[in-house]
Amino acid sequence: MSEEVKPESVSLCPVSIATNPERELLCIFGTGDLGRSLGQRLLQSGYRLVYGSRRPHSCGPLPPGAQVLSHEAAAQSASLIFLCVHREHYEFLESLAPQLKDKVLVDVSNNLKKNLYPEANAEYLQRLIPRAMVVKAFNTLSAWALQNGPSDANRQVYLCGNSTTAKQAVADIATKLGFTVLDRGSLSAARELEDFPLQLFPEWRLPIRLAFGLTAFFFFYLLIRDVVYAYVQEGKDNSFRIMVSLANKVFPIVSLIMLALCYLPGVIAAFLQLYRGTKYKRFPDWLDRWMLCRKQMGLLALAFASLHVLYTLIIPIRYYVRYRLAANTISQIMENKTSKFDTTMAWRTDSYYSVGILGFGLYLLLGISSLPSVSNALSWREFTFIQSKLGYLTLFICTFHTYLYGWDKFLHKYKWYMPPSYMLCLVVPSMVLLLKLLLLLPCVDKSLTHIRQGWERTDPEDATRKSLLT
Amino acid sequence: MSEEVKPESVSLCPVSIATNPERELLCIFGTGDLGRSLGQRLLQSGYRLVYGSRRPHSCGPLPPGAQVLSHEAAAQSASLIFLCVHREHYEFLESLAPQLKDKVLVDVSNNLKKNLYPEANAEYLQRLIPRAMVVKAFNTLSAWALQNGPSDANRQVYLCGNSTTAKQAVADIATKLGFTVLDRGSLSAARELEDFPLQLFPEWRLPIRLAFGLTAFFFFYLLIRDVVYAYVQEGKDNSFRIMVSLANKVFPIVSLIMLALCYLPGVIAAFLQLYRGTKYKRFPDWLDRWMLCRKQMGLLALAFASLHVLYTLIIPIRYYVRYRLAANTISQIMENKTSKFDTTMAWRTDSYYSVGILGFGLYLLLGISSLPSVSNALSWREFTFIQSKLGYLTLFICTFHTYLYGWDKFLHKYKWYMPPSYMLCLVVPSMVLLLKLLLLLPCVDKSLTHIRQGWERTDPEDATRKSLLT
Amino acid sequence: MSEEVKPESVSLCPVSIATNPERELLCIFGTGDLGRSLGQRLLQSGYRLVYGSRRPHSCGPLPPGAQVLSHEAAAQSASLIFLCVHREHYEFLESLAPQLKDKVLVDVSNNLKKNLYPEANAEYLQRLIPRAMVVKAFNTLSAWALQNGPSDANRQVYLCGNSTTAKQAVADIATKLGFTVLDRGSLSAARELEDFPLQLFPEWRLPIRLAFGLTAFFFFYLLIRDVVYAYVQEGKDNSFRIMVSLANKVFPIVSLIMLALCYLPGVIAAFLQLYRGTKYKRFPDWLDRWMLCRKQMGLLALAFASLHVLYTLIIPIRYYVRYRLAANTISQIMENKTSKFDTTMAWRTDSYYSVGILGFGLYLLLGISSLPSVSNALSWREFTFIQSKLGYLTLFICTFHTYLYGWDKFLHKYKWYMPPSYMLCLVVPSMVLLLKLLLLLPCVDKSLTHIRQGWERTDPEDATRKSLLT
Repeated sequence: MSEEVKPESVSLCPVSIATNPERELLCIFGTGDLGRSLGQRLLQSGYRLVYGSRRPHSCGPLPPGAQVLSHEAAAQSASLIFLCVHREHYEFLESLAPQLKDKVLVDVSNNLKKNLYPEANAEYLQRLIPRAMVVKAFNTLSAWALQNGPSDANRQVYLCGNSTTAKQAVADIATKLGFTVLDRGSLSAARELEDFPLQLFPEWRLPIRLAFGLTAFFFFYLLIRDVVYAYVQEGKDNSFRIMVSLANKVFPIVSLIMLALCYLPGVIAAFLQLYRGTKYKRFPDWLDRWMLCRKQMGLLALAFASLHVLYTLIIPIRYYVRYRLAANTISQIMENKTSKFDTTMAWRTDSYYSVGILGFGLYLLLGISSLPSVSNALSWREFTFIQSKLGYLTLFICTFHTYLYGWDKFLHKYKWYMPPSYMLCLVVPSMVLLLKLLLLLPCVDKSLTHIRQGWERTDPEDATRKSLLT
Repeated sequence: MSEEVKPESVSLCPVSIATNPERELLCIFGTGDLGRSLGQRLLQSGYRLVYGSRRPHSCGPLPPGAQVLSHEAAAQSASLIFLCVHREHYEFLESLAPQLKDKVLVDVSNNLKKNLYPEANAEYLQRLIPRAMVVKAFNTLSAWALQNGPSDANRQVYLCGNSTTAKQAVADIATKLGFTVLDRGSLSAARELEDFPLQLFPEWRLPIRLAFGLTAFFFFYLLIRDVVYAYVQEGKDNSFRIMVSLANKVFPIVSLIMLALCYLPGVIAAFLQLYRGTKYKRFPDWLDRWMLCRKQMGLLALAFASLHVLYTLIIPIRYYVRYRLAANTISQIMENKTSKFDTTMAWRTDSYYSVGILGFGLYLLLGISSLPSVSNALSWREFTFIQSKLGYLTLFICTFHTYLYGWDKFLHKYKWYMPPSYMLCLVVPSMVLLLKLLLLLPCVDKSLTHIRQGWERTDPEDATRKSLLT
Repeated sequence: MSEEVKPESVSLCPVSIATNPERELLCIFGTGDLGRSLGQRLLQSGYRLVYGSRRPHSCGPLPPGAQVLSHEAAAQSASLIFLCVHREHYEFLESLAPQLKDKVLVDVSNNLKKNLYPEANAEYLQRLIPRAMVVKAFNTLSAWALQNGPSDANRQVYLCGNSTTAKQAVADIATKLGFTVLDRGSLSAARELEDFPLQLFPEWRLPIRLAFGLTAFFFFYLLIRDVVYAYVQEGKDNSFRIMVSLANKVFPIVSLIMLALCYLPGVIAAFLQLYRGTKYKRFPDWLDRWMLCRKQMGLLALAFASLHVLYTLIIPIRYYVRYRLAANTISQIMENKTSKFDTTMAWRTDSYYSVGILGFGLYLLLGISSLPSVSNALSWREFTFIQSKLGYLTLFICTFHTYLYGWDKFLHKYKWYMPPSYMLCLVVPSMVLLLKLLLLLPCVDKSLTHIRQGWERTDPEDATRKSLLT
């Protein structure tokens, strides 16, 4: 701290600590919530702290142990300055350019919305004070974490900046506060970092909407077919079936369709590449977006499949089922005719269950291999093996499970011209499997492999056009 | 290796390897177990190795290929020295200060207990030999991993030190041995690193004790109510119920209470902030500790909930249940009166199961998002959404599930003045949900948001007191 | 770009972009698939790009915006060159040595098989052009990821090289392309990186083969015992039992044996150390390999156990089971003798289920703690506690579960001299538990601890032999 600063400083801590020569002095511009939270933590971690404020003598309560100075004095006293000021007020910094020269400026700011400004806050700051070393950091943490230290989703500090030494200085502080540091490169990554805290599952939106839509459609379809129909035609009140029976039809249906929709874009992409004869043309936008949310779709499908499993397993403890089984036994005795054991029926239902369990097991495997730490540990050959080969196997097994469920009831049981729901849900998966089978035909497979290795079909026309251009 | 060292060296490897000029020479002080294990691994990874020993000619068997010299000679021959010596013997190093000047000293030591010494071993070492570059590293690995290379929990080498170049040198060696390196900053982090290998689930202790306590209490409560009561009052031997029926009452009860106890401290903290009118005052110690183990509490609650699910699902294959169902059917026939189907009953039980399944599904989601790799990939906005919003929803659904279980039996069925256990277990969750509802009232919510954004209520009194102080 | 290059350049992009002074110029050697994919991505990320080609005027279509030059001219124009050329063609680079001097050469090549060449591609390259700074990088990514950016298993770029600045330059590019960078040390790690994309679950092979072998054996064993025997001796067609009943016997058996085989090598190793009196001798190769795949074995065992759980839980919804239960009730009524409730039976079956559930819970815990992100967060003391102590407890509980299943049927029920399958499956686990019990005896435990702390038993003979040698 230079001598000329002292007179106007408002010291809040015992002199003995303030003058301890070993502890590094940091500066925070801004005495708002963020500045106070961060300051409190820095002081606890053993740094000395000076605040820069417009009105150093009336800036409200600050963490005990910190000094408050004017912006100029504060900037001069420390070599690293945290900027806890809203972007809207950055302009005043231009007048401080001489004091900020060669200082590390840590931009911790966030915006309220995406794309509010044409350039990232940190880039704007660097443009305002070109001779400072701007580092974007700490903005992905909550104010709570800044005050209280790392916890679950607040463990990693992402930082970016153009100066390596400046980044190192900030990384040292972050490590000392207990965080893990991830360097995201040059300042051009600042926009990405500033968008990060604003995001709320962006890649989950489409799959979730789709899942909701499918669930709603099949729920009402089944409501009409299973409950309303029975009430209208037979006068029976089946409404209690909504809670379990209907749910246990809707969930597996949505799950199977979503799983098939995971694999459909890959198949479409392959046919598109075959048709175009090249892999270097971009896919249409909708296909691109679809492909990017396959993982989320698959995980939702797994969630629905898990619900299906649980709903199936509670069947035997349901009052309705127990009642029916007892009623069935009683009627057999009353009418004195015991039903004969039906081996085909035993084979069919047992196969149905067995195939279902194996399918669910593979499903779980796909889910586990999607966990970030697991997929990071896999080579992409391994990842592709699981997600593609085992994925198609899963789709096949689950589709087969549904066919076994239908068995010989495929062509009757229409009610009000509405086919049973499992017939509807088989359309997409069957189609995907069929198309995939086509792609596996040796001749098709060969062309596709060629194309994916970089080979391009040159249309005679195209070639002519090219030669004309040159 | 300098010429003057040679005479007293005890070479154990063929000369051709020892003189290979490309392989780097490292030094290890200490020929105990740790020194041997580490040495073996370093030799296998292609380093040349020299041991420093008090008695270079009688220091017991060492890995073939290593040399043994006196401490002085060994220190002089290499630029990086691993210290495999107990902290108690560090003092002899002071006399080697001239030879250790500007050398990298890797402190791999650990202590038997926490807080055995006022300063970390590595800091003590740096104080002893101020001109050496001390790096704390490798101490978090087991001797097994040092000898045999990385495996599951022994994959990461944490290091800290004040010299960047020294840390880089150590990091290079660790990478070459196959480990991943995590830089934890300056030497002041050494204590943390030295405490790490000693810890045995410190943040799990309180939740585990709590879970055990609750389990024991409800076990004996139910034992008296369900088994002893029946035996004393009705002379019936219900003891077999301990294994499944009792367990399946204790587990869901403990699970629900633990889940509620995860959210209680947050609610208390909010009311405390409202009462105090500031967020900058520290919470009382007990509240702080409670809040820090919420995640562990939640995971234990999930474990108990999973057990509850499994115990519920095996109900229909239990001998007792099958016997009762058959007996029930038989008695219906014998008495020739068939029970009528009860739609309300069907609605109630199905809702009960359905709500339970959905609650468990959300529970699982909370658990999955607690996995380190998943929570690291979430922004804190996403993490908060899951853990707070979905968390309260889970608590609400599970509480509702329990109310559905009780249905209309809430006010009777007392035995020896003991209310049914599910009534007891509803107290805490209902309270938490009620308090949370209070906090969601617009006026309360607004004040709280204000406070959490840094606003402080200034009591007139307080202000007076402050002005008096200045 | 130097002036002399311009004349022969084939510019494909508007001059305004090409001359933008801020964007860095990179070079790619090779215009094949990999070169095109990577080039497209680099251009999209804002780099300028020049291709080096043997025939710059006829090298096929390239991403719009890139220039094509001769190798010499391209090498001169940029300071960093990606080598998208097969190793077989590296030789031509020798003639470019002057132009490549002090340039960063990024080797992205892979081989079709392991151990095809005596040295890693990158090391070979460094030998060819000793004055270039070779960095191995990007080779672990798929061509798809190089073209389209990071996704699940293609998020991390591993790199290695001898020059820190060269690695930093490559790391900057990788970060800008959106990847996470992991520095694997010096160029000697190149072989490891080149082997990585070729691997397909190497450490899973042995456990998977073992699991298949055991499954097949027990399947046929049970087929003969449960289906063929009934058909031959009693003329009954039990074949439908294959789908569920048989599966639900095979899976738990294989699971228990595999779990026991996880712990057997540890026990063997302990006895070997006791016998040899030292821990510094290497274990035989088969034991080493066995120990290295314990984790995979345990996870497979968990998978089989999960299938067992699911197969058990669907029991009550099986047609066969429902038929038998109804038939049983009916016969009780017909013969007018109700079976008495058997408390021992209730105790036994409930204990059996309860113990099984607890065992499965612990099993799951072991599985969860094997997730990379979880095990990384544990200290090895914690990891050992879970995997060893809780592991043995799991094995004990699961073995006990199986003994409870057998109960009093151990010595009868032989068919064609074939003992029931659960008796067979108890052999290995019982043995492992017995041996472990031996190791826990105070005297044995003490010797073992001694040995593991580095103590060695010196045979008198051995000592003599040593003294003779000196």
